[in-house]
Amino acid sequence: MRSGRHFLQIPGPTNTPDRIQRAMHRAVIDHRGPEFAELGASVLKDLKAVFQTQNRVVIYPASGTGAWEAALVNVLAPGDQVLMYETGQFATLWKNMAAKLGFEPVFMQGDWRTGANAAAIGAQLASDTGHKIKAVCVVHNDTATGITSDIAAVRVAIDAAEHPALLMVDTISSLGSIDFRTDDWGVDVVVAGSQKGLMLPPGLSFNAISPKAWAACEAGGDRRSYWDWRDMAGPNDQGVFPYTPATTLLYGLREALDMLAEEGLEAVFARHARHAEATRQAVAAWGLEILATEASERSNSLTAVLMPDNKGADALRAEILDSFDMSLGTGLNKVADRVFRIGHLGDFNDLMLMGTLCGVEMGMMRAGVAHEKGGVQAAMAYLATHGA
Amino acid sequence: MRSGRHFLQIPGPTNTPDRIQRAMHRAVIDHRGPEFAELGASVLKDLKAVFQTQNRVVIYPASGTGAWEAALVNVLAPGDQVLMYETGQFATLWKNMAAKLGFEPVFMQGDWRTGANAAAIGAQLASDTGHKIKAVCVVHNDTATGITSDIAAVRVAIDAAEHPALLMVDTISSLGSIDFRTDDWGVDVVVAGSQKGLMLPPGLSFNAISPKAWAACEAGGDRRSYWDWRDMAGPNDQGVFPYTPATTLLYGLREALDMLAEEGLEAVFARHARHAEATRQAVAAWGLEILATEASERSNSLTAVLMPDNKGADALRAEILDSFDMSLGTGLNKVADRVFRIGHLGDFNDLMLMGTLCGVEMGMMRAGVAHEKGGVQAAMAYLATHGA
Repeated sequence: MRSGRHFLQIPGPTNTPDRIQRAMHRAVIDHRGPEFAELGASVLKDLKAVFQTQNRVVIYPASGTGAWEAALVNVLAPGDQVLMYETGQFATLWKNMAAKLGFEPVFMQGDWRTGANAAAIGAQLASDTGHKIKAVCVVHNDTATGITSDIAAVRVAIDAAEHPALLMVDTISSLGSIDFRTDDWGVDVVVAGSQKGLMLPPGLSFNAISPKAWAACEAGGDRRSYWDWRDMAGPNDQGVFPYTPATTLLYGLREALDMLAEEGLEAVFARHARHAEATRQAVAAWGLEILATEASERSNSLTAVLMPDNKGADALRAEILDSFDMSLGTGLNKVADRVFRIGHLGDFNDLMLMGTLCGVEMGMMRAGVAHEKGGVQAAMAYLATHGA
Repeated sequence: MRSGRHFLQIPGPTNTPDRIQRAMHRAVIDHRGPEFAELGASVLKDLKAVFQTQNRVVIYPASGTGAWEAALVNVLAPGDQVLMYETGQFATLWKNMAAKLGFEPVFMQGDWRTGANAAAIGAQLASDTGHKIKAVCVVHNDTATGITSDIAAVRVAIDAAEHPALLMVDTISSLGSIDFRTDDWGVDVVVAGSQKGLMLPPGLSFNAISPKAWAACEAGGDRRSYWDWRDMAGPNDQGVFPYTPATTLLYGLREALDMLAEEGLEAVFARHARHAEATRQAVAAWGLEILATEASERSNSLTAVLMPDNKGADALRAEILDSFDMSLGTGLNKVADRVFRIGHLGDFNDLMLMGTLCGVEMGMMRAGVAHEKGGVQAAMAYLATHGA
C-alpha cells in the first residue's frame, strides 16, 4: 500500500490521462460494423496531422518493435543492404532485428553521445555507387541516450548523394512531443508507437508510408503477412482492418488525437521544450552532466543524466523508487548503471515536473550521490520566468 | 485543454485514488437485496475502527453540513442551549445553523489563531449551574484556519465541571488524517464526511453516537425525519438503510476502509504529520507566518499561510491556478484574502507535496509576493532525512 499517485517518469510508456482512460472504458464493438468503420476512418484520417503528412498511415495491434519489423519487411528483400546509424540502444536493436531477418545492415558507429552524422551518412551513400543500400534507418529520438538527430539534414545528405535509398525513421519517443515533419523532411517510412507522446497505453504502433515506399512494397519486399501494407489499404479505405484491431486502444487514440488537436501541435512541442529546458537547468545546477554533448541534440522528451563517478545509477533509481515511489529510466547497454533517464513527455505539466525533479534531488541526498544543491531551485526559476 | 494532472490541493475534497475510482465504477445494485446487505453491514462495522469507537456509526447520503444538522436535531430540543467555540469559519457556520434551527448557541469567541480553550469551556460550564447547556460543540480541525483543538482536554474540562452536556465534535477534516479517538476522549457525537481523509468524492457523511447521545435522542431531540437516528438502527442492523443509500459511494467507502486498514491508521497519521511538518518548514523558510500561532495546534491536514502584507492571497491563488493548474484553499470570512490554505491530506505522497510546494513558491515568484527563497529546499531537506 503506497498512498498517492505513482510518478511514472520513465521515458515512456507515459502517464495515461483520465480523459483517455475514460474514453477506453467502453464495451468492445463489432469491428466489422458501421460504428467501428466510422471510428477507424476518423483515426486513420486524423493521424496524418500528427505525422505532418499526406501519406497513408497504417495502424498495427503491436508494439513499436512490430512497426520496426513492418518497415523493414515491406520494402527490403533478403540480402538487401540497409544503412543504420548507432545513436544508442534503440538504433542498435533495430539493426539487430534487420540482421536477424536476413537483411544486411551497414551499421555506422556512433558514440552514444551525439546524433546521426548526416555528412557521414552522405559520404557512405556516395561510396555506394552500385546502390546496394536500399534504405537508411535513423532513430529520430533515441530513448536510451536522449539524443535527437537532425532528420532534415539526413534527407539533404541523401539527396546530395543522389542516392535512391528510402529514408525510414523511428519516431517512437518523439511523435507528439518533438516536432517531426514527415512530408517536409521527405521521410519515406515513419515508425511510431502509442505509449509516449500519444499518451496511450502500449499496444498500438504505426507506419506512415510515402508513395515511393509504397511502390517498393508493391514491387518487392520480404515474405510477409501480418505486417503487409498491401493488405491494409483496401480495408482501411473502408475504415476497417484486415484482422482484429485493438478496439479499446482505438477509442483511446480517438481521444488522444482530440486532445493533441485541442492543445495544438505547436503548443505541445513548446511545452515539451520548456519542460526539457527546466530539467537541463536542474541538471546543470546539480553539477551533473547530460549524456548528449551537443546542446542542439538534447532531447525534449527525456534527459539522460550521467552519474558523477560513472556508476551507481541503478542504486539511485532503486532508492528513488523505494523512498519516493517514482520510476526513472534505467541506463541500457553501453551506459548501463552510468546514466539514469528522466522522462518528461506525454501528459505532463509544471508541477508534475517539479515533483519529479524534487524526487531526483531528494533521492541523491538519500543515496549519498555527490551533487550541488539548487537543481530544483534552478528549474523553478526557469519555469516561473518562462512562458506557459 | 490543460495537459497533465490538476493539483487539487484545497483542504478537501481531496484527490480520489484510482483504486477508489475503480471500485465505484460498477453498476448500482438493489439496495434491498442480499449483496447490498453484505456491503452495508461490512462498511458500518469497519467504520468503527476509523472512528476508534465501539459506538454505532450511521451514514447519510448528505454532505458534512447534513451530519452537523443530524447531530443537533437528534439531541437538542428547540430553545436548548448549545455551547460552541469559535475556532474559525466552520465553527461559525455550525453555530449559525444551530441558531437557524431554533436552538440557542452560546458562542465563545475565539481569535481564529488558537484552538478551543478547554479551561474557558470548563469555566463556562461551571457557571451553568442550571445545566441549560445540553451540548458542547467543537470542531476538531477547523478547515478554515488549520487549527486542531485538543478534544481530550475539552472532555476533561466537561467532567471537571461535572456538567452533563454532550460533547459533539466535527472531524470532517481530521478523520483518517489526524489521530481522533471517539471512545478514549469520550466524544458523544462525531460528525464526519467522505471527501477528506476517507479519500472519497463528497456525498456521504457520518455520525458516531455514544449510548448517552442515543438516550438523548430517544428521550427528546427536535422534530426530524431524514436525520432521525432511530430510523437507522433497525435497517442498519440488517446492513440496509431506511431510505435510498448512495450505492456507488458505499462501494468507494468499502475500498477506502480497506486502504486505510492496509496502510494502518498509525502510519496514516504519521504520513500526514510528516507532510505537514515539511510544509511548515517550507513556510518558515519563505519567511511567512502560519495562521495557527501555537505549534501544538497546527493542523496536520492543512496549513493556512498568512500573506506578508495581510492581503493578496486571492490574487496569488488565481496566479497559481492559472499558471500551474493547482487549486489552493481560499481565505474565508475574517481571514478572507489574508490567507491561502495548502491541503496536504488524503491520498498524498512526498512528490505530490513537493509539486504542491513548488507551485506555491513559483506562484509567489510570478505574483511578486515578497518571500525568501528556500522553502522548497527546506521541505526537501526535511523529507530526505526524515522517515518514510
